[in-house]
Amino acid sequence: MSSLDAVLAQADAALERSRERLFALLRIPSISAQPAHAEDCRRAAEWVRDELAGLGFDARVRPTRGRPVVLAHHPGPAGYAGPHILFYGHYDVQPVDPASLWSSPPFEPQLVDGPHGKRFVARGAVDDKGQMMMFVEALRAWRDAAGIIPARVTVLVEGEEEVGSVSLAPFLAANADALRADLALISDTGMWDAQTPAVTTRLRGLAYVELLVRAASRDLHSGLFGGAALNPINALTRVLGGLRDDEGRIQVPGFYDGAREPDAAQRAEWAALGFDEAAFLGGVGLSEPAGERGRPALERLWARPTADVNGIWGGYAGVGSKTVIPAEAGAKISFRLVPGQDPATVVAGFERFVAARLPSDARWELRTLSASPAIEVPADSPWVRAARDVLGEEYGRPAVLMGSGGSIPVVSSLRDVLGIDSLLMGFGLDDDQVHSPNEKFEQVCFHHGIRAHARLLGKLARM
Amino acid sequence: MSSLDAVLAQADAALERSRERLFALLRIPSISAQPAHAEDCRRAAEWVRDELAGLGFDARVRPTRGRPVVLAHHPGPAGYAGPHILFYGHYDVQPVDPASLWSSPPFEPQLVDGPHGKRFVARGAVDDKGQMMMFVEALRAWRDAAGIIPARVTVLVEGEEEVGSVSLAPFLAANADALRADLALISDTGMWDAQTPAVTTRLRGLAYVELLVRAASRDLHSGLFGGAALNPINALTRVLGGLRDDEGRIQVPGFYDGAREPDAAQRAEWAALGFDEAAFLGGVGLSEPAGERGRPALERLWARPTADVNGIWGGYAGVGSKTVIPAEAGAKISFRLVPGQDPATVVAGFERFVAARLPSDARWELRTLSASPAIEVPADSPWVRAARDVLGEEYGRPAVLMGSGGSIPVVSSLRDVLGIDSLLMGFGLDDDQVHSPNEKFEQVCFHHGIRAHARLLGKLARM
Repeated sequence: MSSLDAVLAQADAALERSRERLFALLRIPSISAQPAHAEDCRRAAEWVRDELAGLGFDARVRPTRGRPVVLAHHPGPAGYAGPHILFYGHYDVQPVDPASLWSSPPFEPQLVDGPHGKRFVARGAVDDKGQMMMFVEALRAWRDAAGIIPARVTVLVEGEEEVGSVSLAPFLAANADALRADLALISDTGMWDAQTPAVTTRLRGLAYVELLVRAASRDLHSGLFGGAALNPINALTRVLGGLRDDEGRIQVPGFYDGAREPDAAQRAEWAALGFDEAAFLGGVGLSEPAGERGRPALERLWARPTADVNGIWGGYAGVGSKTVIPAEAGAKISFRLVPGQDPATVVAGFERFVAARLPSDARWELRTLSASPAIEVPADSPWVRAARDVLGEEYGRPAVLMGSGGSIPVVSSLRDVLGIDSLLMGFGLDDDQVHSPNEKFEQVCFHHGIRAHARLLGKLARM
Repeated sequence: MSSLDAVLAQADAALERSRERLFALLRIPSISAQPAHAEDCRRAAEWVRDELAGLGFDARVRPTRGRPVVLAHHPGPAGYAGPHILFYGHYDVQPVDPASLWSSPPFEPQLVDGPHGKRFVARGAVDDKGQMMMFVEALRAWRDAAGIIPARVTVLVEGEEEVGSVSLAPFLAANADALRADLALISDTGMWDAQTPAVTTRLRGLAYVELLVRAASRDLHSGLFGGAALNPINALTRVLGGLRDDEGRIQVPGFYDGAREPDAAQRAEWAALGFDEAAFLGGVGLSEPAGERGRPALERLWARPTADVNGIWGGYAGVGSKTVIPAEAGAKISFRLVPGQDPATVVAGFERFVAARLPSDARWELRTLSASPAIEVPADSPWVRAARDVLGEEYGRPAVLMGSGGSIPVVSSLRDVLGIDSLLMGFGLDDDQVHSPNEKFEQVCFHHGIRAHARLLGKLARM
């Protein structure tokens, strides 16, 4: 048996214990958006540090301005001369609300049956605790079966991915020497479908803002003041309701400036994937594509920018009626960006858009909560080729190159601050309910993911 | 000393005890909109019943489909041949939120100093517990000073005014015999200013609806689905943002059908009032009139319809960012109506407006929470003349005829179900913070109100 075969056999034999370790991490409610969970974030960081230390890493929890980072190093085998791999993951998770829609408590992981076999249900099951632990378990299989960590590896696990990785870029800059590597390996993306592995080469960027509109100095009676006093909800809906024209084109000035269209080869590759839009939408109870008209579905998801209101509030939302003109109203709005768009330009354009549409009595405030540009990874890099090779061996069918509509802020920080390109090999499925109630991760994906990472470690070590 | 002089002297001497009784009622949190306060509503009804029974009324708490009604009768002096007066008030109050903006607990009434002397601060201080108790205390002054209730009086105190008086019309119809009267007397309106008494002869109507918009079967990740999946907040803001054109004209089809403009005489009377719009708006921190352009301010408040979003919700409203496309969003919307507009036509028009603007994937629901037309009371009726006379005597200056932008659903029910016209004599001020935190009632208004009602009882009894 070759050493790789022994490693893969070890990964198979240890699957149940690998799952138990993941479940232990899933029980820590490390929600980065909510200050009440700051201590849980610290506990999650320490848990990850202890796992890596147990594998022989020099592992530390490092403070940032926000949630701490886990940073761990292993030199690899004596005399190692292959590439230095920087693995990135995040231990923080999204808030759970609406909590009432969960079928089991979000931080009590469940093993349940589904169409693909067993699945794990918990907040963070796939995003990103489950995917991060695939890499840790691949390292463990190497150590247990072959007695070595096969490559020089630095592990960086942050705790603010779900809030825009705000502290990460300064941390990277301050620790550039400790983070030098030849490539970054990230497992926070998806497969094409349950049978088809994928490497992701495009990610949309994200500008996320919060808009508060204040009008009168107090709540007013809508009978006594209605028709004369500014209603901040009326004003806010007028701003947000005008974000798109009838064709779905976003009306923020300068919004599309620099946005690059996919080239013909890219379009042809995506067309060949045979994306079933009806099934994609039908899976979440929808039948009609939203967004820009006249664009193929994958293009709308991977290569076109968006404007979505992610939250809105103001006035009375209780039972029955209250005839109030509230003193203030607010909304959270996100723009997904494509290569060529500058997040700062988009936010500045939105600020002009708001200013032009609010009456002079509206006192308003626009806060930027995160801003990161879109990413394009060179499809012909040796790392992408290596990942496609190991995925092809693991699944017995070719891996495809995908885009993703989501954003991983660290990818641009790694490139801009450290000059490192990222390799995105992920094992999520479209129906994993990422950021939603009943988030899940398929055990078969977790298992393949451990094995594919074990293969990739072996392959990269020989490059 | 005439018997009226003795009654007024008694009202003056008893002012502190009158206030203490009002404070006892204000301590009962009888919020009709919130089911958790149903028992408090019953307690408030029983409290009012006991007060009236103590004045010699045949007083009962009567069930309705919702909150109970207090119904009480007194035959007046032996051989009474004057008009039968139906007094209407309501014991229910608005919700208190945002609770954090109250400077004292809303159901612990405070006696504090202000520019007009002492004032009462509590939810319901003026709307309508304080105003209702003025009538009760006027009855008490007559009984204590003159030994009689001077007129035949029926008292009707409901508990659903703040939720659209939904159970009242059926109650009136079922109890028409017990409610027969020559006029209805209502104290739930305001003065022109702190020095100028007023009779209100116009009230706007109200159609209040709740709109729920549902899209996907679950919350979605805005990166993975954004640009393809319908966002119900985007859709809702597009509907609501289009409610008005740039001139402030409401775009609901058929909205203005039948709406009557005030006539020239009415406009001249209002112009003569010398309304200081800058002071009105400045009092709540605003400087620029909202609503329809090109209309005088009082016309916008008293004689033009409105569309106000009173509440909106959807998605993530917590700290930080969450990149969610929620499964649903909702809003509460009210339309203030003027004479000639039909509430049912307005709601039907809004339903068409919504249907035309939501995409086919949006599953939506529109519920009507209340619907009542506007009111015009004949300005030359003998009851209005009597009220102007007693207000002139009480204040030493003429009372003006006003409109009000608010709605009192019972006024149309009394007219439509029982054929009774209402006389609206009220003592609130514009800055009473009705429906807002720190609602208050000036003691001087309460005091004048008791005295004016004592005068009016004496005058009506002789008609």
